[in-house]
Amino acid sequence: MSHRYSVILSNVGSCSDRYVTGGYAEPFSIAELFGRVAQIPQVTGVELVGTWHVTDKNVKELKGHLEEHGLKLVSIIPDHFGQMKWKYGSFAAKDPAIRNEAVAHTKEMIDAAIELGGDLISLWPGQDGYDYLFQADYMQERDWFAEGLREVCRYRPDVRISLEYKPKEPRTHSYLSTAAMSVLMAQETGTDNIGVTIDFGHALNAYETPAESVALLKRYGNRLFHVHMNDNFRHWDDDMIVGSVHTIETLEFFYWLKRTGYNGWLSIDQYPYREDGLAAVREGVNAMETFAALVDSMDQAEVEALIRNGRSPEITAYLRRMLLSVPNAAR
Amino acid sequence: MSHRYSVILSNVGSCSDRYVTGGYAEPFSIAELFGRVAQIPQVTGVELVGTWHVTDKNVKELKGHLEEHGLKLVSIIPDHFGQMKWKYGSFAAKDPAIRNEAVAHTKEMIDAAIELGGDLISLWPGQDGYDYLFQADYMQERDWFAEGLREVCRYRPDVRISLEYKPKEPRTHSYLSTAAMSVLMAQETGTDNIGVTIDFGHALNAYETPAESVALLKRYGNRLFHVHMNDNFRHWDDDMIVGSVHTIETLEFFYWLKRTGYNGWLSIDQYPYREDGLAAVREGVNAMETFAALVDSMDQAEVEALIRNGRSPEITAYLRRMLLSVPNAAR
Amino acid sequence: MSHRYSVILSNVGSCSDRYVTGGYAEPFSIAELFGRVAQIPQVTGVELVGTWHVTDKNVKELKGHLEEHGLKLVSIIPDHFGQMKWKYGSFAAKDPAIRNEAVAHTKEMIDAAIELGGDLISLWPGQDGYDYLFQADYMQERDWFAEGLREVCRYRPDVRISLEYKPKEPRTHSYLSTAAMSVLMAQETGTDNIGVTIDFGHALNAYETPAESVALLKRYGNRLFHVHMNDNFRHWDDDMIVGSVHTIETLEFFYWLKRTGYNGWLSIDQYPYREDGLAAVREGVNAMETFAALVDSMDQAEVEALIRNGRSPEITAYLRRMLLSVPNAAR
Amino acid sequence: MSHRYSVILSNVGSCSDRYVTGGYAEPFSIAELFGRVAQIPQVTGVELVGTWHVTDKNVKELKGHLEEHGLKLVSIIPDHFGQMKWKYGSFAAKDPAIRNEAVAHTKEMIDAAIELGGDLISLWPGQDGYDYLFQADYMQERDWFAEGLREVCRYRPDVRISLEYKPKEPRTHSYLSTAAMSVLMAQETGTDNIGVTIDFGHALNAYETPAESVALLKRYGNRLFHVHMNDNFRHWDDDMIVGSVHTIETLEFFYWLKRTGYNGWLSIDQYPYREDGLAAVREGVNAMETFAALVDSMDQAEVEALIRNGRSPEITAYLRRMLLSVPNAAR
Repeated sequence: MSHRYSVILSNVGSCSDRYVTGGYAEPFSIAELFGRVAQIPQVTGVELVGTWHVTDKNVKELKGHLEEHGLKLVSIIPDHFGQMKWKYGSFAAKDPAIRNEAVAHTKEMIDAAIELGGDLISLWPGQDGYDYLFQADYMQERDWFAEGLREVCRYRPDVRISLEYKPKEPRTHSYLSTAAMSVLMAQETGTDNIGVTIDFGHALNAYETPAESVALLKRYGNRLFHVHMNDNFRHWDDDMIVGSVHTIETLEFFYWLKRTGYNGWLSIDQYPYREDGLAAVREGVNAMETFAALVDSMDQAEVEALIRNGRSPEITAYLRRMLLSVPNAAR
Repeated sequence: MSHRYSVILSNVGSCSDRYVTGGYAEPFSIAELFGRVAQIPQVTGVELVGTWHVTDKNVKELKGHLEEHGLKLVSIIPDHFGQMKWKYGSFAAKDPAIRNEAVAHTKEMIDAAIELGGDLISLWPGQDGYDYLFQADYMQERDWFAEGLREVCRYRPDVRISLEYKPKEPRTHSYLSTAAMSVLMAQETGTDNIGVTIDFGHALNAYETPAESVALLKRYGNRLFHVHMNDNFRHWDDDMIVGSVHTIETLEFFYWLKRTGYNGWLSIDQYPYREDGLAAVREGVNAMETFAALVDSMDQAEVEALIRNGRSPEITAYLRRMLLSVPNAAR
Repeated sequence: MSHRYSVILSNVGSCSDRYVTGGYAEPFSIAELFGRVAQIPQVTGVELVGTWHVTDKNVKELKGHLEEHGLKLVSIIPDHFGQMKWKYGSFAAKDPAIRNEAVAHTKEMIDAAIELGGDLISLWPGQDGYDYLFQADYMQERDWFAEGLREVCRYRPDVRISLEYKPKEPRTHSYLSTAAMSVLMAQETGTDNIGVTIDFGHALNAYETPAESVALLKRYGNRLFHVHMNDNFRHWDDDMIVGSVHTIETLEFFYWLKRTGYNGWLSIDQYPYREDGLAAVREGVNAMETFAALVDSMDQAEVEALIRNGRSPEITAYLRRMLLSVPNAAR
Repeated sequence: MSHRYSVILSNVGSCSDRYVTGGYAEPFSIAELFGRVAQIPQVTGVELVGTWHVTDKNVKELKGHLEEHGLKLVSIIPDHFGQMKWKYGSFAAKDPAIRNEAVAHTKEMIDAAIELGGDLISLWPGQDGYDYLFQADYMQERDWFAEGLREVCRYRPDVRISLEYKPKEPRTHSYLSTAAMSVLMAQETGTDNIGVTIDFGHALNAYETPAESVALLKRYGNRLFHVHMNDNFRHWDDDMIVGSVHTIETLEFFYWLKRTGYNGWLSIDQYPYREDGLAAVREGVNAMETFAALVDSMDQAEVEALIRNGRSPEITAYLRRMLLSVPNAAR
C-alpha cells in the first residue's frame, strides 16, 4: 500500500524541555527547516504550527517555501498550547476572552490553510484540562469546549477538523484524552467535517493498542482523518523515532491502516532532543516505509486466519518467523 | 445527602488469587455470607453474582435469605467471567455458541433479578477483549458485543443494564475499557435502559479522575446507573478498602455524586485477600458514610467558587484545612 | 552462544486467576506435566515449586520422573507464596512461627534439590511486603527478611540461593522489588552463594530495561544466577509468551547475556491462561533460541560501535534492517 | 517535631515546559526571587541551582541576598542538566571532556557553597542515563559515573554530597533511578560524606512508598541527607503543591521522618506552571508544617500498635477518624 509521508516542520529542527529551555541545539529559521525537509525524498508534505510557523503576516512567504520545495501543506495545527495566554486552556478556558481568542485563531488558521492549498486542521487542545482535583467544572468546561469546536467546524465545512487526543501533558489531565472520548466530542458538533488524529505515542500512553484505535475510529463513523507517528516507552509521550521501541504494535498498526483503507497522510511527530532532527525524521520515514512494505508482503489470508483463530502460540510463531530472520539459518 | 449502601455478597467472604487458588481464608456458605452482611447496620442491599450465588435452582432460597435479613436485591452481575468456558469472551467470543450462552445466561439473570425484586443488571464483560497483538478482530468482535448487548437490553425494557468498564484484567486489554467507551457502547443499543457502572478503582486504573467520570456520564445522557467502591494504587485493580489510599479523589467523587444528583446505590466491591471480609466491608461502609457526611458539611458556595476560579494554592489550602485538622492547634 | 533451556513445570499445565479459581483448563498430574515437558526437544531441565510439586513425601517419585525423561533439576522454588499461611509473608512475616516455617521449608527444599541433583534455589518471596500504608514496619520486617535469608544461605554453602525480585503482586508492594534492591539484600547475607534471578517481565514491570539489569548484576558482584523468561505490556506481570510484545528489549537482553558471559539456564515462566501450556512453552523456547541465534549473527564490532556512539537514528536504522526484512525488496 | 523549611529559589518564580519555552509567566530577577522567598515566614533557607543562580561571578552578590533576608544556604544543586552541553550526560557522558567539566563545575559549586556558608550539595544527574535501547554501555557509563562521584566526594570531605534519584525525565531512563540504586552508588564511593535526597514525587513515580524509602535509607547506612517535597499523580513528576494529591502517603512520610529522627531540611521543589510561584510555595510550606503538627498530635503508641498488628480495617478506621473529621457530627 502506498502512503503519503509528511512531517511537522519543527521536527527537523531543535527542541527544548523544562530544564534546557534554550534548546538542545541551535535553532533553525523557517527557511532552513523547509530546506531540511526537502532533503528527505519520501516526504511530500508538511504540517505547520500556528504562531511557531504561521502568523497573520507570513502566509505568502510560507506559500513560497512550499512551492520552492514542491511540498504540500498537509495541515495546520493551530496554536492552542504554545503561549502563556493558553495556560488555563483554549476552547475550554475559564476566561471567555481566551475562549474567543481560541476560536478566532483557529479561524485564521483555517483561512491560512486554504490559502496554502490545505484542507485539514489538526487540533490539539493540549492545555484544555486540569492539573488539580477540585480545580475544574468538568461539565461546564466540556460545554465550552464543544461550543468552540462547533463554531470552528461550521466556519468552513470544506475544511476538515481533526482532533488529536492525549491523556496528559502539559496538563496532568486532558479533556480530549482517548480515542473514544474523541468520538464523543466529534459527535457533539453535529457536522461531518470532524474526525480524529491518532498520535501513535499518545495512544500507547493511554494504554490503547494503536491498531485497535484505528479499528475503533473506523467503526464509529470512519473518523480517522490523520496520523502522527513516533514511539515511546508507554509511560510518557517520549516522541521517539518511529519503530525504535514497539516493533509489533507498529506492524499491527500499519496492518490495520491497510485493512481499514486509510488513505490520509502519515506524518512524523518526533521530538529530537538529542538527535539531529533531520537524521531522526529521515529514519522515522524509512521506518514507516518499511513497515508498510512489510505489511504488503504479508499473506493477508494467513494473517486473517491468525486473527480469526486467535491462538497466541501460532500468532507469536508467525511474528517470530517474520521479524527474527537469522541469516543463513534454518529454523 | 443520604445514600443507600450495599455490598457484593462475596465481599464479606474469602477470596483467591492465581497463587493461592484455594483461598486466603476458609470459604463461607451463601447463608453465612447473608448473615455476615446483615451485621452491618448501614447496608440495606446486596449484589449477587451469577453462578457464584445465583443458579437456575436456588432463586427461591435466595429470596428467603433476602427476606430473612430485610435486604434488597440491588443487582445481579451475570457470570461472564468466572468459568472456563468464558475464557475467550462472552458477548464478543469468537465462538457463536458461547455468544449465545452469554445472552441466554444474561436473560436468566434478568428473570432471576425480577423474581428477587430487583431491576438492575450490572454487567461486567471482563473476558471480552484480548491478550495478544494480532489476536483480535477489533471491529467484528465489537459488532458481536453490541449485538448481544442489544438483545439483552430489549429483552426486558423495565430492567436496567449497567456496563462496568475496566481497562484490563483478566485480559491484558478489555473492550469496555473506559467511561467514554461505555457511553459509545451504550449509545449503540438504541435503548433507554442502558447505563454505566463506575467502579472507583477501575476509573483510577484508567487514569480517569473518578469525579470527572461522574460528570462525563451525567453530561452524555445521564448514564450513571450504579457505583462500585474500593481503592487502589492506580496501577492495578487492588480492590482495597474505600478511602485507604485516595482521600481527595474519594472526597471529590462524593462531591460530584451530590452535585449531579446521583440517587442510585453505593456498593462495596473490595477483595479482602488478607483481611476479614466483614471487617473490611464494615470499614468501607463507614468510610463511604463519612465522606458523604463530610461533603454535606462543606459550604457548597465556597467549593463552587474554588472550582470556578481554579486557583490551586487556594484549593489545596481549603482541603488542608478540612482534612488536616490538628487537635488543639491554631493553624 | 549456546544456552541451556528449561521450564517451570506448571507452565505446561493449566492455571487460575482470581475469577476462574478452578482453572482455565483441566489440571494435569505431575507425571503428565513431565511427559509434556519431555516433548520439547530443546528443553533439558525443569524447575519445581515447593508444595505444588515437591513435598516431603514425593522426592523419590520426582527423581524417577527426571530420570525417565532425562531432565535435569534446574532449581526448586520454595513455596513462600502459595498457601493461606503465607498471607502476611514468609521470612518477613509478623508472626515468628511463620518465619520459622519459612526457613524450615526452605531448608527442606534445599535438601530436596540436592537429592534431585540440583544446586540452585530460586527464591521468590512474593508475600513479603505490604498492601496498605501504615501497615508495615519497613525496618523491622526487612531485618527479619535478612535474618531468614542469612540462615538459609549458611545452611548449605554449596547450594546457590537466587533472589527473584518483583515490584508488586500478590502484595501491592513487595520488599524485594527491583534489581538494585536485590543486590542490597544479597550483600547483607555476607555469603557468596547468593545471587539474583531476573524475571524478564518483572524487570519490565519495574520500569527497568532488562539488558541494563543484566549489566547491573554483572557490575555489582557478578550476581546473575538465573533467568525467567516471558513478556508483558509493562503495567503488570502478564506472563505472556517470550517475544510476543517486546522484540527489541528481548534482543538487547540476549545481547547483554552474551556480552556479560551469562552461562546459567534460561527458564520459561509463562502463565498460559487461555493457551495450551505446552504449545505456549514450545513457542517460548523457539523464541529464545531464535533470539540467541540472531544475537550470534550480529557483527559484535558493529553493535559495540553503535553503543559507543549512541546515535539513535543509526541504532534504529540498524535494528530496522535486521528486524524488518521485506522479502524480495531492496531497502 | 520541629523541622527546618527551605525552598529551591526558582520555585517562587515562573517556569517553562517544552511547549511554552518562554515561560508561563514573566521571569523574575534573582533579587526578586530572594525577596519573594523572604515573604514566607517559616522558610529560613534556600537552595540554589548552578548556572541558573550561581555563577563564578555572582557569589558575593548571592551572599548579600542571603544576609539581607536572613536566609541560610541549604544546598547548591550543580547544573548537570540545564544546558545543551549536558545532553548526553554529566559524570556518565560518553565524551571525557564533558565528564571533566561536570567534575570541575561540581567542585566550583562546592567552593561556592562553602563561601556561602553551606555544607550540602544536592546532586541531580538528570541527564545521566539513556533514551534508546542499544544506546548505552550500562557498565562503562556507570563506572564513569562512580569515578566522577568519587572525585567530588573526596574533594571536600566536610561537604556532604546528596544524590537525588528519579526514574526518568529528561532521559527516558535515568541511571540514578531509585532509593536502592542510590545506596549502591553511594557505597561505591567509599567515603562517608555521601547520602541521598528523597524527592517525594520521584519516589512516587518509582512506585516507592515514600515512607518506606525513608526507612530504607535509615537502614542502609543512615543515608537520608535531604528532602524535596511536592506531589504528583504517580505517573510523572508533576511537581505539584505538597499534599494536593497524596494525603496519607504524605502523612506516613512525615511519621517516618520523625520515627527515624531525620533532622535535615525539608525543601519545596514544585513547578508552578500555572500558579503564582509564591502562593504555591507558601501553601506547600503550610502543608508541610501541618503534616508535621498532625504527626506530633498522633499517639505514637497507638500508631505503633497499628503497624505492629497490620490489620488494614483498623488502620483505615484510624486514618478516617483523623482525616475525615465532620464538624458537629458523631461518628
